[in-house]
Amino acid sequence: MFSVCYGELVSGSFQMESAELTVEDTEPLVGHSGQESLTGAGACDGFLYGGCPEWDPRACARGGRPRQLAEALLNPLQFITGAHDAWSGWVCVLLVGVCTGVVAGVIDIGASWMTDLKFGICPQAFWFNREQCCWSDNETTFDHGNCSQALGGSRDGPGAYIISYLFYILWALLFAALSASLVRMFAPYACGSGIPEIKTILSGFIIRGYLGKWTLIIKVVGLILSVSSGLSLGKEGPMVHIASCLGNILSYLFPKYGRNEAKKREILSAAAAAGVSVAFGAPIGGVLFSLEEVSYYFPLKTLWRSFFCALIAAFILRSINPFGNEHSVLFFVEYNKPWIFFELIPFVGLGIIGGCIATIFIKANIYWCRYRKYSKLGQYPVTEVLVVTLVTAVVAYPNPYTRMNTSQLIYLLFNQCGISNSDPLCSDYNRNFTDVNSAIEKAAAGPGVYRAVWLLFLALLLKLVMTVFTFGIKVPCGLFIPSLALGAIAGRIVGIGVEQLAYHYPKIWLFSGECSTGDDCITPGLYAMVGAAAVLGGVTRMTVSLVVIMFELTGGVRYIVPLMAAAMASKWVGDALGKQGIYDAHIALNGYPFLDSKDEFQHTSLAADVMQPKRNETLSVITQDSMTVEDVEALLKETEHNGYPVVVSKESQYLVGFVLRRDLNLAMANARRLVEGITGQSLVLFAGGPPAGAGGAGAGALPPLKLHRILDMAPITVTDQTPMETVVDMFRKLGLRQTLVTHNGRLLGVITKKDVLRHVKQMDNEDPNSVLFN
Amino acid sequence: MFSVCYGELVSGSFQMESAELTVEDTEPLVGHSGQESLTGAGACDGFLYGGCPEWDPRACARGGRPRQLAEALLNPLQFITGAHDAWSGWVCVLLVGVCTGVVAGVIDIGASWMTDLKFGICPQAFWFNREQCCWSDNETTFDHGNCSQALGGSRDGPGAYIISYLFYILWALLFAALSASLVRMFAPYACGSGIPEIKTILSGFIIRGYLGKWTLIIKVVGLILSVSSGLSLGKEGPMVHIASCLGNILSYLFPKYGRNEAKKREILSAAAAAGVSVAFGAPIGGVLFSLEEVSYYFPLKTLWRSFFCALIAAFILRSINPFGNEHSVLFFVEYNKPWIFFELIPFVGLGIIGGCIATIFIKANIYWCRYRKYSKLGQYPVTEVLVVTLVTAVVAYPNPYTRMNTSQLIYLLFNQCGISNSDPLCSDYNRNFTDVNSAIEKAAAGPGVYRAVWLLFLALLLKLVMTVFTFGIKVPCGLFIPSLALGAIAGRIVGIGVEQLAYHYPKIWLFSGECSTGDDCITPGLYAMVGAAAVLGGVTRMTVSLVVIMFELTGGVRYIVPLMAAAMASKWVGDALGKQGIYDAHIALNGYPFLDSKDEFQHTSLAADVMQPKRNETLSVITQDSMTVEDVEALLKETEHNGYPVVVSKESQYLVGFVLRRDLNLAMANARRLVEGITGQSLVLFAGGPPAGAGGAGAGALPPLKLHRILDMAPITVTDQTPMETVVDMFRKLGLRQTLVTHNGRLLGVITKKDVLRHVKQMDNEDPNSVLFN
Repeated sequence: MFSVCYGELVSGSFQMESAELTVEDTEPLVGHSGQESLTGAGACDGFLYGGCPEWDPRACARGGRPRQLAEALLNPLQFITGAHDAWSGWVCVLLVGVCTGVVAGVIDIGASWMTDLKFGICPQAFWFNREQCCWSDNETTFDHGNCSQALGGSRDGPGAYIISYLFYILWALLFAALSASLVRMFAPYACGSGIPEIKTILSGFIIRGYLGKWTLIIKVVGLILSVSSGLSLGKEGPMVHIASCLGNILSYLFPKYGRNEAKKREILSAAAAAGVSVAFGAPIGGVLFSLEEVSYYFPLKTLWRSFFCALIAAFILRSINPFGNEHSVLFFVEYNKPWIFFELIPFVGLGIIGGCIATIFIKANIYWCRYRKYSKLGQYPVTEVLVVTLVTAVVAYPNPYTRMNTSQLIYLLFNQCGISNSDPLCSDYNRNFTDVNSAIEKAAAGPGVYRAVWLLFLALLLKLVMTVFTFGIKVPCGLFIPSLALGAIAGRIVGIGVEQLAYHYPKIWLFSGECSTGDDCITPGLYAMVGAAAVLGGVTRMTVSLVVIMFELTGGVRYIVPLMAAAMASKWVGDALGKQGIYDAHIALNGYPFLDSKDEFQHTSLAADVMQPKRNETLSVITQDSMTVEDVEALLKETEHNGYPVVVSKESQYLVGFVLRRDLNLAMANARRLVEGITGQSLVLFAGGPPAGAGGAGAGALPPLKLHRILDMAPITVTDQTPMETVVDMFRKLGLRQTLVTHNGRLLGVITKKDVLRHVKQMDNEDPNSVLFN
Repeated sequence: MFSVCYGELVSGSFQMESAELTVEDTEPLVGHSGQESLTGAGACDGFLYGGCPEWDPRACARGGRPRQLAEALLNPLQFITGAHDAWSGWVCVLLVGVCTGVVAGVIDIGASWMTDLKFGICPQAFWFNREQCCWSDNETTFDHGNCSQALGGSRDGPGAYIISYLFYILWALLFAALSASLVRMFAPYACGSGIPEIKTILSGFIIRGYLGKWTLIIKVVGLILSVSSGLSLGKEGPMVHIASCLGNILSYLFPKYGRNEAKKREILSAAAAAGVSVAFGAPIGGVLFSLEEVSYYFPLKTLWRSFFCALIAAFILRSINPFGNEHSVLFFVEYNKPWIFFELIPFVGLGIIGGCIATIFIKANIYWCRYRKYSKLGQYPVTEVLVVTLVTAVVAYPNPYTRMNTSQLIYLLFNQCGISNSDPLCSDYNRNFTDVNSAIEKAAAGPGVYRAVWLLFLALLLKLVMTVFTFGIKVPCGLFIPSLALGAIAGRIVGIGVEQLAYHYPKIWLFSGECSTGDDCITPGLYAMVGAAAVLGGVTRMTVSLVVIMFELTGGVRYIVPLMAAAMASKWVGDALGKQGIYDAHIALNGYPFLDSKDEFQHTSLAADVMQPKRNETLSVITQDSMTVEDVEALLKETEHNGYPVVVSKESQYLVGFVLRRDLNLAMANARRLVEGITGQSLVLFAGGPPAGAGGAGAGALPPLKLHRILDMAPITVTDQTPMETVVDMFRKLGLRQTLVTHNGRLLGVITKKDVLRHVKQMDNEDPNSVLFN
């Protein structure tokens, strides 16, 4: 049970099922009704895997709108059914969007209130968070510490400071302990960010319970608690998981989606987009994130629906308005100055720095997670959470930049210094503001700025170390916000450096053009934004979606080029230093059976090299008309394959079709129970015609067991000379589960997805046995 | 030659080639070197069609970056080659982006200057367009008519008016005649928007010369002329074609892309994104347009590169700054008021109106284009252009809204009425502006507004009719701008209506909430924007890309929800009234062999129903070791298939592989010429082993012709029981050219893409013979 995030995955909890129903095996799938549709080999799914589920296959193929309108005149009932069928997808994503927006609002409000609880409660109204409390009455104090001290201002004395410190640590420990215990007790899958697992699920696998209601509830509660505990984690990644849970649960209201895994994945893709959309207020970025990063196979027809879902979710969240600000974007920025062309040099530099920070983070995090997985540490998840929380709280409190909410920190760093900005980062410049709208004059940084930079540098180191230890502990935790914070700190430091360089050396040719006037030509906040994009890009290897998210996040339309330059540099540096992004690295670490659709397979092996059985082994096959019930039962007992090829005869091995183990099991059991005269000696017939030894043979007296209805007569085949490049491509694009290998029409072997995954690992010089499989 | 836009397509000008080289057949593709790679069945392409071209297949599979870095230490030369190979894609799209930006700048400047030429020249500096001329000297006149009369102000008298009128018509005719003649004489493919053809090309076909340098040059010059002539057309669609030409031409600088059609398509996808990007200043929208509308198969790995290309192009164009405005967006709008929730009702209404207008436009245009195609009209393209131009010019001039540049009209309609807006649409309200920043008060519309609305209504009708006759004439013409204009007019009219309704009936419950104050609560400009999106969405059936383009086009971040509501309503209405968007309708009209990847195939036919040969016909096959050179030559002469399956023997028909007609032809010719002892009686061997009748047969004395190197031993096969749904899916996703149909390992027949296309047409009750094919 404690599989996915808990390091070891209990064998069998991965179901290599695909487009079938998620029903238990006890349900008589292959009864006497609906068998026909299983023969149709499920091409109505985007993926070709399995069968069209047992309801009417015509409902499976969606009717075109005009035809439905015409039919409406003939049969109103049919029209209503048809319309329901056609609209159910839209209604479903609408519901997913609305619920995601509401849940995101709950999380935002809850996390905001509880985070401020660590600093005290509002004496007037305990349900206010600090901002609301201070807002409602300018003169009020916020329990221990008045409102203005938010960013490390003066205290009432060492005693009060220590009390605040202790309260802070105690609340943090309480929240973290609650979160970890809830996760441990009720929903082990609720830990982590969930994105690697959702990628795996969308690539065609089922992890039972991963998107269930308990996971949802505990993830929401645990996320509020873990964010409030001040750990170095964000709520954005888990929002994707939460939205996917909602998508999964709501899809059961619509049989067309709930009962067909392939169709359900369309809803899940849309839900993932909605998750990112509410996390950042970025609907377009959310869709692109789902397209680029999460979804394995993204049919274009669902693009529009995903966008709708993402937009609804963002709209609902904005109507709830949990932050109480009027901008729809999370970190709204407005800079007076456009960027200058030469600034591309520091921006690319920031990209390189971001790529390096990201690589350090990924390598260290993977090292630590591997250590956790294979050592005793993994057995004490709650203790680990408490220790990490304690260390984080103790170290973070003294530094105002680590003590404050990470989102607030990012917002502060992104901001341009203005008249209203009282943080030492801005206030200690030797400049006088005359008017809100006037240009900001160039100025030398005072000692307060240097002290702030020094604190920021410490915060960078601290956050980097703490995030390495945090991402992977057993509470809901995402790393978008920590990554953005790391990058924003680095960017702001670089920005202040470039700004001071331009102030002190205005004659350098770089600065001589645009910086020769008295105005400040460098905006350190922009550097923070670019740096944030660089680190996030390096960690996740997002590209287009990253730029779009940053652009939606900040509303900075003019800064696409700098963002893009940094993201490109960061990705290239990241790719050069280490192959995988954090999600792919975690997928590999956990051994999820994920066949990456972006990597090119670049080896020259052939299908014959990969297929099972290897030389000197025999292939388990069923003949179409010469095996008895006992033979088949023996075969089922001896072998554990998920399915068996059916051939003309043992000698000739010409391929007839493919039959699934599950179907065969059920059909045999049902037949023995329900059909009269079936004994162990009855012939099993897959062909429509008379049996091979008909009439003469001893078994002829018994009525044969006709099973041609469960035979898939259209298995996908390749020849033994097919390059593995092509085979991998077919597995990816057609979503195959297995393919049969033939030579001149004769069956030679089978290649399953497991074989392909192992082969890919082997070719990449990795351990092929690290792939988890049922 | 006058095929694509000229209605009739000369048979044979379509080459159903695919991933092979675009060389002429005379080049000895199958010589004595590089044959091996043809056996590899080209899985290094996104599409599986053809062979890996004749250079080193290892270069074809891209090396990973880290491996290259390691190799660099071992062999610097190899590193440089490898780096060039890895980087060539980036360099290529960089060049495409830069060139697209420059060409777009040239077109914008040229079209702007020549459009204004119709109204006179600048006396001070003839190379100034009107805006620049009037800008440089406030008191100057612009030849006939001073600067302020741009929007239909007072004239110097009827005489001057008539002179202006005549000048306008003459210039228009001159430009149109030049454009049409250039297209007719030098590059017939340069006409139209080019998007249907590019969709077809990206789906895997080759139209020779369609993306060549002459098409490019003539399209650029012709586009400037035809835009300037005042016809109801836009330059945005053709920009996609121009960018694709640039992509095609520049890809020849990089052998990896220039010599492989599948790789080249990646460049073309990126180029299409760049085209939209420069057309609208919308890089993200461009990428989504390419993804959603143009590209058939869009591998995610090229997403980032396309975005880069689009961004570079937009950046270059902005640096050129052809419009001289500081906003990077085309129709920058800023509204004081956010939209109100109840306004969704009129927005959805606008969507419905937009869908209806779009459907009327598509049906009428297709009707007229079909008439042109099958009547004598098609033989007089230049005359037709002149007549349309004459009518347009005569009718358009008197109405100020049709006389002005369509882009200016759209900008005017999108705008909010402000203090500086002197058009009667805004100036004739009974309100006084006190301050630029103050809220706009509610006001009753004066008679000038009603007159303007009336003129707008006439303009709507006129533009609709003229665009129907214009889209399809033999000059470069796009319909983004006309569609936007139609929608903007309709939207503005509706907006003024709602505004006046809210003014006159402020007590209606809808308006009672937000409109009860004295400020104007309805912004007619926003309605224009929403209406524009609705019509464009109805015409092209774009969805996400439309919303993103509109949002980038106008900079209106807050208006995604209204845009989306209208786009959805419009698309649904459009889909209900007529199945296809304008591009798909033109593809169907011209019979391009395009297998739509978005339509679901929803019939229950099987591969056996579609394959060739039908019952009572024989399949042309080659046996692996029992046919002589003469037999094969006879078969090649008798049949015209593009390729032949190779089977074990005529009797057993077990499938061995597939050989292309072209390879076979060349191999036979080469062998006869170069290999000694090959006569008509020599056996043709495709198998590695000894021939069937080895030793004993009469032909045994002759050395056999061994052709196993040109045999594709990995053809894609399906069984006869495979549902066509699956087969269509395989054709789409794997980009197949043909698939072989087997039953129990025996070859039954072949399904080519042509068969699939015909079958799809037949199932949709359309004429299957309308599909063009070589």
